[in-house]
Order: sequence, then structure tokens, then C-alpha cells
Amino acid sequence: MIPKEVYEQAKNSTLSMFQDAGIVLTPLEKENIEVADFGLNDLARIGLQLIVYVNTDRVCAKELALTPHQTCPEHKHPPVKHQPGKEETFRCRWGEVYIYVPGESTPNPQGKPPSEGESYYTVFHEVILKPGEQYTLSPETLHWFQAGPKGAIVSEFSTNSTDENDIFTDPRILRKPEIIN
Amino acid sequence: MIPKEVYEQAKNSTLSMFQDAGIVLTPLEKENIEVADFGLNDLARIGLQLIVYVNTDRVCAKELALTPHQTCPEHKHPPVKHQPGKEETFRCRWGEVYIYVPGESTPNPQGKPPSEGESYYTVFHEVILKPGEQYTLSPETLHWFQAGPKGAIVSEFSTNSTDENDIFTDPRILRKPEIIN
Repeated sequence: MIPKEVYEQAKNSTLSMFQDAGIVLTPLEKENIEVADFGLNDLARIGLQLIVYVNTDRVCAKELALTPHQTCPEHKHPPVKHQPGKEETFRCRWGEVYIYVPGESTPNPQGKPPSEGESYYTVFHEVILKPGEQYTLSPETLHWFQAGPKGAIVSEFSTNSTDENDIFTDPRILRKPEIIN
Repeated sequence: MIPKEVYEQAKNSTLSMFQDAGIVLTPLEKENIEVADFGLNDLARIGLQLIVYVNTDRVCAKELALTPHQTCPEHKHPPVKHQPGKEETFRCRWGEVYIYVPGESTPNPQGKPPSEGESYYTVFHEVILKPGEQYTLSPETLHWFQAGPKGAIVSEFSTNSTDENDIFTDPRILRKPEIIN
């Protein structure tokens, strides 16, 4: 559970980031900003703020916001109900984001796993996205990502999203709608 | 065929609109701005400017730009290769856009069909989108849309896009990659 004051602070800072980037939300969307700490209670280092624009059976679009150096932990999207796993395109809108996928480990990467829990990060091929740049992940590809020093705003275009089915490398994580304490 | 000077002018004005709205494109994307006049040679009234961010077998995302009162003519997306027709969500980013779909005709609508070719517009239920507002179209739903007095920038989140299969009410229209003269 995220303490209410942590949630409110993260929500307000996300709204400021979106506003500064010219991203307009409706009043209802502003209320519905999601703050995910992945149950690790360490939001400044491991977490993600987002708004889901649309999520139908076929298509999902989200806007993600990350604070400086904040990490979305390693996970993959398995097949669900006879559908192939989720396919995702990440497009950097603002700031900088480092995505890590299987492949040759990048020497001297820009980001690094959060120090506590390093063993739960296993893929180290780095893709750097600056504003306007994007990367498409095939279903079931392990990945994690981290914002650069200013933070990042990232558009996600994907197939249907069912966060509760995501498989995280860190067994302590359970991704589900967060309950605010 | 769109005359080269018309294309270049439309492309540059689209790039300015995107830039003013904080939408960043890569140099290659800037080169690839698509200008569609639907073969009607009346771009100021009937047309659309766009960039396709991604178009995989499952997911497509585009950014559309319309000049003041510019109209995307009435069409629908049929099933293609045993897949249901394209599902589209339009999200207004900037300006204002009026979408017309089947249903009760809206009295005193904000937009109106281009005067030449009015008979090719048959659905008149109006959905007004201001920045942050969005609307999802089911497959095979007839629709057309028109920008408000300032023009509009509209994000489109959809299933796979195959423009050449779109069915337009106006039989003069053939939607295909435009050749620049």
C-alpha cells in the first residue's frame, strides 16, 4: 500500500511534468493518475507514474512519467487467454529513458539496477531513447527501464494491457492496482 | 498527385504545428510527414497531414494534424485478411476536432461537409473533442472529421492500419500513398 501523502505528492509532480510537456489531461484523468511502487515501498528509486488513455481488447495507450533515475523493474508479458503476449512500443516524449533488453550487455551503460535487488536484473543490452525516439518490444521479451537525470515522459502504444499478468524477475513484486493507505 | 510545392508547404506547416505543441519528431520522421489530399486536389478543405509512429501487425499509432476546418472525408475500415476492421481511438492533443458518426443527427453542428461533394457525407452525429478528450470507434463504423477554427492535432491509437483498404463514401477517392509530382 502506498501512503496517501506519497501518492498525492507523486500524482502532483506527474501532473506538473505532463503540463510542462504540453500533455493535456481531462479532470477525470488527473484524478486517475496511477502511481505504482510495485509493492517495494521505494518509489523514488523503483516505480512508475502513468495515465491509461485507452485499453480495449485490442489496443492500449498510456503516458508514463518517471522521476530522475526512477526504474521500472524487469518483467515480461506472457500470453494471456490464448492471445500472444503484450507487444509494446515505447516512444520518448521528454527527457531520456534507458531500456534494457536481452542481447549483448552494453559496456558502460547509462543506467544501472537499483543497488538493493540487483540480482533481479538479468538483461543489460541498452537502448537509449531521447525525445522522438522509440523502440518496439516483442511479446515475452524481458525488459526493464530507467529514466535519465531529468526524468522522462514516455508514450506507450501496445496491445491490450493486463498488468496483473506481468511476470517480474523480482519475486517480491506483485503488480496490481495499488491501494492507497 | 500532389504538386511538390503544395506538399512542401503542408509539410512545413505541419512541422510547425507539432513543434508548437511540444511534439518531437526524429529527422527521418520529419522527412516522412504524409500529406493526403485523397486525390481531390483541394487540400485546404479536404485532407490530412500525419506521421505514422508505428504500424505493426497488431498496433498502430499516428499523430494527425489538420488545418483550420480541414476535413477527413467519410470512410470506414473493413475487415482485412480475416481480421476485424481497424479499431481507432482519436485523442485531441491541441485545437478542436469534430467527429461525425452514425446516430441521431446533431442539430446545429460545429462542422459541415465541404460544399462540393456534400452528398458523400451521410452520418451526422457529432462528437466534439477538445484537448485531452478522446473517442473510440468500433470497426466498420462510418466516420468523418473536421478541425475547428484553429486546426487540430489528434493522436490516433489503433489496430494495424492498411489505408489502401479504407472504404470512402465518395467514389472519387482512392486512398493510397501519395505520389508527389
